[in-house]
Amino acid sequence: MIYSSSLALLTDLYELTMAYGYWKLGMMDREAVFTLTFRRRPFQGSYAIAAGLETAIEFIDNFHFQPSDLSYLENLKTANGAPLFEKGFLDYLANFSFKGDLYAMPEGTPVFPYEPLLLVKGPILGAQLLESALLNIVNFQTIIATKASRIAAAAEGDEVVEFGLRRAQGIDGALSGTRASFIGGCLSTSNVFAGKQFGIPVKGTQAHSWIMAFDKEKEAFDAYTEVLPNNCLYLVDTYNSIEGAKNAIAVAKEKKINMIGVRLDSGDLAKLSIQIRKLLDAAGFKEAKIMASNELDEFIIRDLKKQGAQINLWGVGTNLITAKDQPALDGVYKLAAIQDEKGAWVYKVKISEQLIKTTNPGILQTRRFYDESGRAFADMMYDMEKGLSERNKLIDPLDPTRIQTIDDNWNYRDLLVPIIERGKRVYTSPSLSSIQKHTSNELETLCPTVRRFLHPDPYFVGLEKNVYDLKMQLIGDLKK
Amino acid sequence: MIYSSSLALLTDLYELTMAYGYWKLGMMDREAVFTLTFRRRPFQGSYAIAAGLETAIEFIDNFHFQPSDLSYLENLKTANGAPLFEKGFLDYLANFSFKGDLYAMPEGTPVFPYEPLLLVKGPILGAQLLESALLNIVNFQTIIATKASRIAAAAEGDEVVEFGLRRAQGIDGALSGTRASFIGGCLSTSNVFAGKQFGIPVKGTQAHSWIMAFDKEKEAFDAYTEVLPNNCLYLVDTYNSIEGAKNAIAVAKEKKINMIGVRLDSGDLAKLSIQIRKLLDAAGFKEAKIMASNELDEFIIRDLKKQGAQINLWGVGTNLITAKDQPALDGVYKLAAIQDEKGAWVYKVKISEQLIKTTNPGILQTRRFYDESGRAFADMMYDMEKGLSERNKLIDPLDPTRIQTIDDNWNYRDLLVPIIERGKRVYTSPSLSSIQKHTSNELETLCPTVRRFLHPDPYFVGLEKNVYDLKMQLIGDLKK
Repeated sequence: MIYSSSLALLTDLYELTMAYGYWKLGMMDREAVFTLTFRRRPFQGSYAIAAGLETAIEFIDNFHFQPSDLSYLENLKTANGAPLFEKGFLDYLANFSFKGDLYAMPEGTPVFPYEPLLLVKGPILGAQLLESALLNIVNFQTIIATKASRIAAAAEGDEVVEFGLRRAQGIDGALSGTRASFIGGCLSTSNVFAGKQFGIPVKGTQAHSWIMAFDKEKEAFDAYTEVLPNNCLYLVDTYNSIEGAKNAIAVAKEKKINMIGVRLDSGDLAKLSIQIRKLLDAAGFKEAKIMASNELDEFIIRDLKKQGAQINLWGVGTNLITAKDQPALDGVYKLAAIQDEKGAWVYKVKISEQLIKTTNPGILQTRRFYDESGRAFADMMYDMEKGLSERNKLIDPLDPTRIQTIDDNWNYRDLLVPIIERGKRVYTSPSLSSIQKHTSNELETLCPTVRRFLHPDPYFVGLEKNVYDLKMQLIGDLKK
Repeated sequence: MIYSSSLALLTDLYELTMAYGYWKLGMMDREAVFTLTFRRRPFQGSYAIAAGLETAIEFIDNFHFQPSDLSYLENLKTANGAPLFEKGFLDYLANFSFKGDLYAMPEGTPVFPYEPLLLVKGPILGAQLLESALLNIVNFQTIIATKASRIAAAAEGDEVVEFGLRRAQGIDGALSGTRASFIGGCLSTSNVFAGKQFGIPVKGTQAHSWIMAFDKEKEAFDAYTEVLPNNCLYLVDTYNSIEGAKNAIAVAKEKKINMIGVRLDSGDLAKLSIQIRKLLDAAGFKEAKIMASNELDEFIIRDLKKQGAQINLWGVGTNLITAKDQPALDGVYKLAAIQDEKGAWVYKVKISEQLIKTTNPGILQTRRFYDESGRAFADMMYDMEKGLSERNKLIDPLDPTRIQTIDDNWNYRDLLVPIIERGKRVYTSPSLSSIQKHTSNELETLCPTVRRFLHPDPYFVGLEKNVYDLKMQLIGDLKK
């Protein structure tokens, strides 16, 4: 943790007032199930890449109220000036730690709308207290990992360098944003803190200020080469990109170095890179890279490639690190079940005027089925405590006439795995580069038509029959 | 600082390699001037609200390389496996602290494109090392304060509660985002950590999960009222908003409490709030508030008000905390001048194919002129060391035939104030609520036509004649 304190207060006030309510009413140990899901397909694609789990586990592991937190809470007042919380509740919080279970999709797993990314099961007070921070962590890292996976796909195997520190939303926007970018497929970053914290390779070139600090561009290249002969990726667009490239070539030849390459940061990147590639090749720098930056995203990279751009290193900043076209995943954390006084589960749905916004009840696992070729074919949500009534029948929750059946001999995998059991961590997170590898392997299992950037082929996510029937019954009861 | 360490490594790698270059070449103490400016008018309005300064000062005050930072840097390698940095440079960093000057616009000041929000003057190595983090901090807080000022304007004096924690971009996105929202005009937040850290009032209601944890909505309201009779802002839309409001009224009457009000989180907020206002009034709850949340922004709030919505408490989340329609200010940090070996200033412009993207040279102060009525009339950028050639002549940098003259007797104010002098802080930050008050006072000085959300009246920002002439001369020299 880079924070000097527990983040227990990183929560919406209502989590604490509800917790207080459960405590006062003696309901605090009632078992409940919450699921973290999202509704809208990010960036009009089809999938999201699960991310943020390791950060979420650290948050839960470190979750405790410090004396200064408690005295802050002690001083909160209601509208009429009375203390908001009783002393007894604050004493309870002083000794509080999370004692429930956490299930989660491992980071790097492609996830579809309505599928639980996290499932929290445990005493309702604790499960409720985690809501705001879990949403914050998972919503952000998931949206960034998803964006990065699209950008990496557009780059078709070229290295994408995360360049967004200066435009990220605050310090952690840069830090955990870089972590998520790496999960999604960026291979390196300019952010040194992220390099130190997460072991992500760091990369850098030069700023325009370096060039401008000298009288002439060539002087600036000369000086840099003198100092860092093995690290020369010349920024060539300060005055004129073609002249800049010629200066870079001249300096590299004079100093007899093997330049890494050149960077373009303005102008038409397709046209300039083609011209500069020829200059580099003619001068014998066939291995020199051409890096491009400047408002890149998956669509621009794809178009540049289509137009023959000779770029093989992509520096992507703002559009990646802020997920500019959709800066937030619309993840929600909803109550799916609660035990009654006798310990029996009471299942819950949150209804809405639109069926599409109605939540799914139960303790939901997601099972992904693969066809003979190993392609992910469809996902089924089923209650992990009740099991399956029919192994291979999936019902579209929005259209019960749409039913998908699965071959008996197809493989499957359950996506949620146990992370914390009764407050104790039981899961060892893979290394960040294993997670990155997992992302890319998992994406390979999706049909390319499902991975299309816009208007992809919809991937089938169905409900197991018991879950579907329960949902319909609960909606019916509520609408009565 | 909530961070357990200095944030010296919160930087792009190239800042460190350039610093290494300046050190190796013996240029590290050459005086230089950098300005932090932005180009694009945020949200298609006209102004931005300066924010982030206090965080930036803390960052600079705490700036030092820790042993673990230095050993991380020591292990970085160039492409051919050699150490990236010499040991001598790392020893230099071990003792490094910022020894330059910082000027800044106080937080809450309306700022226009090209005007320096910050000006850093000092030894080039240190001024360069601060770039990435200063941009990160100021870009983010400024865009959020700006968004908040628009939302607060749309709310026309109603309280706006910042509700964005769960959708913010990471932990600091929520934390310093809330700080910036408050600067821009939000009066409270749901984020308890921000409440503790910055003294911002915290507010909260109930989640749907509270309602769903009970068999019936009325039971849930009853239980809550029992526990927190002075804090009842009932969430009424879990099943049906009108029925929910009736239940809230029934419970408040039965328990004889003075409810704070009700919250709507879905459905047509105009229609529902008008109906519910009538129910509340008829039941004698004339003081009860109607709070609304659900994807609000300045445009929706304005439209709801226009349609007679009876809402007087606005909970604004995602669109505010991520500045969804423009999640990053496009702030840049550019070299404006550097001393030569003899200590004379050499002025710099960064040219571009478009004149609009060319930077302004010199050590630029911004002077804001006010007409007789106290309205801000125009801003002039001038070199603070050279002073003014003509007190009252401003030249449009993009069209020299557009000249604005200022009445001799009009008041003016210079917007940049000294913050750090030779490494020592000389500025005492106002309290956060004074900053908020400053924002609102300052916005009042802008003509309402300039504050319009879209296509506002352009505010005149001109160059002092010497600056204009210098800029033209430098561009001419570079294009030769």
